[in-house]
Amino acid sequence: MNYEYDKPISYCGIFGIYGHPCASLQTYYGLHALQHRGQEACGIVSRSFNGGGRAHFNILKGEGLVSEVFADSESLNSLLSGNSAIGHNRYSTTGASKSRKNIQPFMVNYRLGNLAIAHNGNLTNAKELREELVNEGAIFQTTSDTEVILHLIARSKLDNQIDQIIEALNKIQGAYCLVILTDNKLIAARDPLGFRPLAIGKLDNSFLVASETCAFDIQSAEFLREVEPGELIVIDDEVIKSGKIKSQRINGNPESKKHCVFEYIYFSRPDSFIFGHNVDKMRRRLGKELARKHPVTDPDGDRVYVISVPDSSNTTALGYARELEKQGIDARLEIGLIRSHYIGRTFIQPGQSNREIGVKIKFNIVKGVLEGRTIVVVDDSIVRGTTSRQLVHLLREANPKAIHLRISSPPIMHPCFYGMDFPSKEELIAHSLNGNIEAIKDYLEVDSLEYLTIDEMLEAVSEAGKENFCTACFSGLYPTNVDLNFKKEMYEI
Amino acid sequence: MNYEYDKPISYCGIFGIYGHPCASLQTYYGLHALQHRGQEACGIVSRSFNGGGRAHFNILKGEGLVSEVFADSESLNSLLSGNSAIGHNRYSTTGASKSRKNIQPFMVNYRLGNLAIAHNGNLTNAKELREELVNEGAIFQTTSDTEVILHLIARSKLDNQIDQIIEALNKIQGAYCLVILTDNKLIAARDPLGFRPLAIGKLDNSFLVASETCAFDIQSAEFLREVEPGELIVIDDEVIKSGKIKSQRINGNPESKKHCVFEYIYFSRPDSFIFGHNVDKMRRRLGKELARKHPVTDPDGDRVYVISVPDSSNTTALGYARELEKQGIDARLEIGLIRSHYIGRTFIQPGQSNREIGVKIKFNIVKGVLEGRTIVVVDDSIVRGTTSRQLVHLLREANPKAIHLRISSPPIMHPCFYGMDFPSKEELIAHSLNGNIEAIKDYLEVDSLEYLTIDEMLEAVSEAGKENFCTACFSGLYPTNVDLNFKKEMYEI
Amino acid sequence: MNYEYDKPISYCGIFGIYGHPCASLQTYYGLHALQHRGQEACGIVSRSFNGGGRAHFNILKGEGLVSEVFADSESLNSLLSGNSAIGHNRYSTTGASKSRKNIQPFMVNYRLGNLAIAHNGNLTNAKELREELVNEGAIFQTTSDTEVILHLIARSKLDNQIDQIIEALNKIQGAYCLVILTDNKLIAARDPLGFRPLAIGKLDNSFLVASETCAFDIQSAEFLREVEPGELIVIDDEVIKSGKIKSQRINGNPESKKHCVFEYIYFSRPDSFIFGHNVDKMRRRLGKELARKHPVTDPDGDRVYVISVPDSSNTTALGYARELEKQGIDARLEIGLIRSHYIGRTFIQPGQSNREIGVKIKFNIVKGVLEGRTIVVVDDSIVRGTTSRQLVHLLREANPKAIHLRISSPPIMHPCFYGMDFPSKEELIAHSLNGNIEAIKDYLEVDSLEYLTIDEMLEAVSEAGKENFCTACFSGLYPTNVDLNFKKEMYEI
Amino acid sequence: MNYEYDKPISYCGIFGIYGHPCASLQTYYGLHALQHRGQEACGIVSRSFNGGGRAHFNILKGEGLVSEVFADSESLNSLLSGNSAIGHNRYSTTGASKSRKNIQPFMVNYRLGNLAIAHNGNLTNAKELREELVNEGAIFQTTSDTEVILHLIARSKLDNQIDQIIEALNKIQGAYCLVILTDNKLIAARDPLGFRPLAIGKLDNSFLVASETCAFDIQSAEFLREVEPGELIVIDDEVIKSGKIKSQRINGNPESKKHCVFEYIYFSRPDSFIFGHNVDKMRRRLGKELARKHPVTDPDGDRVYVISVPDSSNTTALGYARELEKQGIDARLEIGLIRSHYIGRTFIQPGQSNREIGVKIKFNIVKGVLEGRTIVVVDDSIVRGTTSRQLVHLLREANPKAIHLRISSPPIMHPCFYGMDFPSKEELIAHSLNGNIEAIKDYLEVDSLEYLTIDEMLEAVSEAGKENFCTACFSGLYPTNVDLNFKKEMYEI
Repeated sequence: MNYEYDKPISYCGIFGIYGHPCASLQTYYGLHALQHRGQEACGIVSRSFNGGGRAHFNILKGEGLVSEVFADSESLNSLLSGNSAIGHNRYSTTGASKSRKNIQPFMVNYRLGNLAIAHNGNLTNAKELREELVNEGAIFQTTSDTEVILHLIARSKLDNQIDQIIEALNKIQGAYCLVILTDNKLIAARDPLGFRPLAIGKLDNSFLVASETCAFDIQSAEFLREVEPGELIVIDDEVIKSGKIKSQRINGNPESKKHCVFEYIYFSRPDSFIFGHNVDKMRRRLGKELARKHPVTDPDGDRVYVISVPDSSNTTALGYARELEKQGIDARLEIGLIRSHYIGRTFIQPGQSNREIGVKIKFNIVKGVLEGRTIVVVDDSIVRGTTSRQLVHLLREANPKAIHLRISSPPIMHPCFYGMDFPSKEELIAHSLNGNIEAIKDYLEVDSLEYLTIDEMLEAVSEAGKENFCTACFSGLYPTNVDLNFKKEMYEI
Repeated sequence: MNYEYDKPISYCGIFGIYGHPCASLQTYYGLHALQHRGQEACGIVSRSFNGGGRAHFNILKGEGLVSEVFADSESLNSLLSGNSAIGHNRYSTTGASKSRKNIQPFMVNYRLGNLAIAHNGNLTNAKELREELVNEGAIFQTTSDTEVILHLIARSKLDNQIDQIIEALNKIQGAYCLVILTDNKLIAARDPLGFRPLAIGKLDNSFLVASETCAFDIQSAEFLREVEPGELIVIDDEVIKSGKIKSQRINGNPESKKHCVFEYIYFSRPDSFIFGHNVDKMRRRLGKELARKHPVTDPDGDRVYVISVPDSSNTTALGYARELEKQGIDARLEIGLIRSHYIGRTFIQPGQSNREIGVKIKFNIVKGVLEGRTIVVVDDSIVRGTTSRQLVHLLREANPKAIHLRISSPPIMHPCFYGMDFPSKEELIAHSLNGNIEAIKDYLEVDSLEYLTIDEMLEAVSEAGKENFCTACFSGLYPTNVDLNFKKEMYEI
Repeated sequence: MNYEYDKPISYCGIFGIYGHPCASLQTYYGLHALQHRGQEACGIVSRSFNGGGRAHFNILKGEGLVSEVFADSESLNSLLSGNSAIGHNRYSTTGASKSRKNIQPFMVNYRLGNLAIAHNGNLTNAKELREELVNEGAIFQTTSDTEVILHLIARSKLDNQIDQIIEALNKIQGAYCLVILTDNKLIAARDPLGFRPLAIGKLDNSFLVASETCAFDIQSAEFLREVEPGELIVIDDEVIKSGKIKSQRINGNPESKKHCVFEYIYFSRPDSFIFGHNVDKMRRRLGKELARKHPVTDPDGDRVYVISVPDSSNTTALGYARELEKQGIDARLEIGLIRSHYIGRTFIQPGQSNREIGVKIKFNIVKGVLEGRTIVVVDDSIVRGTTSRQLVHLLREANPKAIHLRISSPPIMHPCFYGMDFPSKEELIAHSLNGNIEAIKDYLEVDSLEYLTIDEMLEAVSEAGKENFCTACFSGLYPTNVDLNFKKEMYEI
Repeated sequence: MNYEYDKPISYCGIFGIYGHPCASLQTYYGLHALQHRGQEACGIVSRSFNGGGRAHFNILKGEGLVSEVFADSESLNSLLSGNSAIGHNRYSTTGASKSRKNIQPFMVNYRLGNLAIAHNGNLTNAKELREELVNEGAIFQTTSDTEVILHLIARSKLDNQIDQIIEALNKIQGAYCLVILTDNKLIAARDPLGFRPLAIGKLDNSFLVASETCAFDIQSAEFLREVEPGELIVIDDEVIKSGKIKSQRINGNPESKKHCVFEYIYFSRPDSFIFGHNVDKMRRRLGKELARKHPVTDPDGDRVYVISVPDSSNTTALGYARELEKQGIDARLEIGLIRSHYIGRTFIQPGQSNREIGVKIKFNIVKGVLEGRTIVVVDDSIVRGTTSRQLVHLLREANPKAIHLRISSPPIMHPCFYGMDFPSKEELIAHSLNGNIEAIKDYLEVDSLEYLTIDEMLEAVSEAGKENFCTACFSGLYPTNVDLNFKKEMYEI
């Protein structure tokens, strides 16, 4: 059992650094700060030089947290030596992806030398590309989209690595943020729609790239700017000297952006700056909008207590409570759920008699706060609904007067093809109950349930441009061509 | 390095259950809920019966979290079989205590059969007792006080185990909560001054004992009452049948109580009920009192932002912010620090150049919340001050207008002999600076610093009786005889 | 399943060193050389000095081979620092003894300081002593006899450790070789009947004690002499200076010796010198005597091929083959069985269909050597007979003309109370078939089977004194009082 | 430090089975029997079927012994389900090859489905092929030759897998034994010169392929025949039904064979049958030839004692001793060295003062056997000479009269390009001393040293055809084109 509360699952966090004497140590700190984007496995590739000045790539990957896989400082200091490195955090979900060899970065040797790559996202034409490549004689060692990109680069007839990469990126569709390490450069690229965040930083003379800016803060690096949608940047020794990053467009003119709104709702850390804004601020606005459109009052005029599901909805709940108060409602933010942070990778399950133990292992209720009171639970999303239901049962043990549930995103009805992992459509509670919020309310056994509508949600994040967000998982309107019947398992090895 | 933010260290959590078919599984859940009381090591002893009806004790102990040591359900189901069990979480601090053999419960065989014991607390006359015992030929395998209790029981000439235990407890002084498992009983005892909490619960027909009531909540057990200071209770098959717990006084009349106030300030989980009250409520009152006596206002009339050091001071900060608002100060609770929960047992350290990395690995700041603002950081205590200082430096990176620090306990000036582990007096910042708050403020580089005074603190918890608390670590007034020169290392093996 | 070929099991190997700058490293080598005496667990205790010149004991114990438990040179260099150390290899057999806490050396603190002890052997009056001690209030943490010795020492009213130890040893009966480390001495003692071997060595200025002399050879230490039966020797700083070992009698006059003849037959390494003679020479003589009294000839005058069960009967088979040749029989030593040395602690078992896989995992036959030939398998002992039977089946796969089995010891009919671990009497094939060799032959499905008789065996080792050996497991004649009904499980915790 | 006595290193053992209900369990046993061919890492790929009858490949690989990597029977029963499987044992030597991803079998997905491959040997035109492939856009994830073969297969335009494989094999040169598992077949192939052994077996209805026949014996499978040099065999469901293996030639007519003579001298297990003969018999003949051409007699007419370096030269020494006796020399086989089998993957090294500890950890001398005697040490080869020299020093501790060394192979002067791993030429003692045996003798400090000459060696194995062996490492006459300047490190990733 995965003890993560029933939430959408992001695929990964990526990091790269060029030109720092402790490149792998800095990558280690960066990956640690990005740990929330993937906890199952991680890896670092560093580039050092042999006696003869020939580039040599070093790799260490493994299952577990960054602090577990790189538990030994020797690994970082001697094994992963060199002044440039890239790293990756991964969140495995399917059986196939649990294979060790799906752990990134991938590292290969091809016509123009060594190349290591780390990828966050999901391609939508991977199947076609893969079939084409396979017909041309390519061999695949994983089911990962990333390997498709590697083949495209390697098969390019062009003689310049940057040109090869641009050529390859022009063939792929979907969501990608990439960091690539070659014998003499660090390259970062972001898809033209900008689904996932990617930022550029600076530490002394070195340049850094990371999924979120919190990876810069941990090492007191300066945040320079985001990689633009459709932009490819190159860091090499010249850049280190000049201090001027090389940049080029992947393909022609910028298209309209389609950021994943879930980065604001749930994925990113509140202290990160993505899509032009502080996550913290946007998340608070989602809470405020939720309060404006879906407030809770007590029929008897009693005070309303707002509680978050820690830690992911803390900021949203803060905004919600504040807005209620502002509207003159007698409301208060309270700490009604305590989250245990001592849960390891496995936890022993009880038999039938004690069904709520799963959620109790993760959360404890503060009875004194809840008893006899009208409670608003603010959460960011509902996927299967099973854990939410258990959580509501748990809260009922404190005998609250009423439990109202407010969700800072719309109902999730459709699969994501851009790097989030939901269960199958059939398992999505909103889908299986045809988006009938009343029915979901009944299933969850709450006194009332409200979601943000798509419009309300976009209103809340409108400072970043309402039209700049992908809403596919709520609306079914995919911004790129997707094959709705596609299943990764189809070419599972 | 220990990545726990620089706080007092509690010694342990204990749990016992008698008469449940899945005794060790329930103990596992109980210990998980008590994990915050000790994360270094844990153990469970269960009692099963051999073919011939002879009691057999089973044991499993190890270093690590409950979910790590008991990762395998086979351990709980088959190895730790039986309908009664006790368990222990331990927080190791000194070199000696890191030895595997100091992991509790201890299990021995003596004249009246098998006996397993788990202990939370610290004896103040252990040295004298140990010397006496050693002179009589006792051998010691650990440096633990608990072994002294075992010897006292085993050497008793009395022929009834309960009488033996009472006799032994009458010889020891200091702080103890004990659970003892024998061939046919579960015994729990709490010292006459009631330093540490201990509660009794009920699950179906079985009875439970735990350091905090949160260990009952996780398994939906009913909280019956606390074990009284100076009370010894017995659970055996008769008790299971009758439903009436056997209870007796350890020694004569109840003395005045001396609860450890740090259980309210920091140790216990907010969702627990101890010393007659909800921790959550008391912790909030400490925050409110702190706000009443030591408010923060901005000289320019700007809004004041209250932030907690998560997670331990969340509730206190909530109370502080609320009270400021109530007093008409333009104040707001904010989330300005994010805590990482992905830190393993070890974390690789950088060199000199990046001194704040230690605190940055654990905390990240939310810049947008802090920049240009007047910040009040509410924390529960300061021990060495080194981490607080680093944390302040970290907050400064966001360029706040001012940083005010408010502490919901008085300055810690003296060692604790009742189960908390501080560094040596010399390392206590308040002691080394002679309790000069101005000097501490300068060291921490904050704009202002205020502690609760002892009286203010007692006022905040006065609902539980001002006189019912030990204040020794603040005042130096020890409620029992203590040997101020005593060092555990003196008889370290 | 234990993949050791079905043999008697020795309990342990012990080692001690006093006055060497790398005491624990030398102990490590010594224990490695003694690994054949116990592979389940091992431990080392070293004595270093604190700043104040106070002795400090360091300990590291664990399950596994010496090279596994002490895999890290840091353990030996820094953790186990000091110029004196003792160590122990253990062979666990029963469920109880599998508990980690039964791993030796044991280390305690008592009236006269620290004391660590490692023990090879088995006491015959442990039950009475334990009961006495328990009645006096002693607590037992293990089921080990060794803990009895510790209590006896600690309870002595005498004020000199040597006197205390002598007093304790005068109370115990049975088999023991002990090394004891105190704050200022290394003490070694051997029981008056000299059941198990114990030798003294010298390396530069330091003195060593070990179960077998092979532990000296590995470190190029000089073998001085054996510890005499009933002798206690002391090494302290004076001894280091003077070069003269202090020695005293444990109790009065030397009794007649009762060496365990299985040390010659099977336990000790052939390159060791024990009981006054080279093991290798005695083992060869057992083979020669076996050939003289139980030769094999082929009825058709064909050549006879002698094969050993590697590695334990290699030397015996060499002696057997040589003697046959000497007698004019056309015989040849051959390598007909190859032993795998790549077997880890566990090996996956097949289902019913392939019963011989257990023995095949360990042994492979060299078909070309066996096919159509008359084979004599020389083995040192038969315990349960199950593995021998499987081995014979395995050999039959090569279609030999005939398989004759010759055993260089008499049938094992009785339990050992002096430190060997057999299965229960009922499981001993010789006992369950009433010593009927014809019936054993039929069970094993060999063409002929012969054991050495007790007299023949004693004749073979007569150079060391026929009367100097214990023959209890063959004859049932125990040289000390034993309680035939005693079972260790009786006071199992 | 590698504690293997200084010997040539073979690369691998391979195994495959088709049509057995417990395919992975049988592969496990097979790999265990082949463990001597590689102890660093191992892996198994099995083929099962999904619900829809689609083939699914399962994989488990890891560092360590077969019994360690597959310690859990669950892995074999559930993870590695299916009725067909292949496996591989690997001996890593260089830094690069230590990477986890070099562990075989390799498993890929390509145009015609899944394909897993395990390879024993070394290609001599891998560099050219790799460069060609890379120029065509292939990406390489390892430095292994085996990946070259995979690319050649995948790039074939042919539409039949067997044809693709044949096409690929016609492009490669050098030494290879391959097992390949596809969605519906097991394929085995052996290079036209037959450098390495490969055999076919049968177990019930299933067919097996293994590097050596000892892998059949362990599971009581029948040995059918060897795979011929230049033969490719196919096992599929038709073969299972018909019982008739499909076979075809890889390329035209059989060439002359070039078996690796070191398989007889040292690599293969004595109980295997390879190159048409029992290894045991051929190894004995090498010993006899050595005795005939390079006997040892004592100048004073004393008896000569022949000892082997266990276990690898046991059989050779037996042949040597026998032949001496046959020639009327007073000679005797003796056990003068005992080998420890308790050495783990690492062993702690001492400082300068005790240089022989390395060899002493592995070997102990039986002094009584050696003292004052004329000794002939029979060994199979000398590579660097450093360990031999240490071994001689060790033997000198027993004060023998003389030590004569006899080697059952010629001096190793040249690198092997067909799957053996020697150190660099400069480190080969025979090369660095220009093949001057007198100089080697002086370095090793033996009284005399003799090797078999190439002719004598071929004479000893002549029953298998003198001209059928490769002698390149002795003579420098390579049977295929080789690039003497080639270094694998050249394209190390």
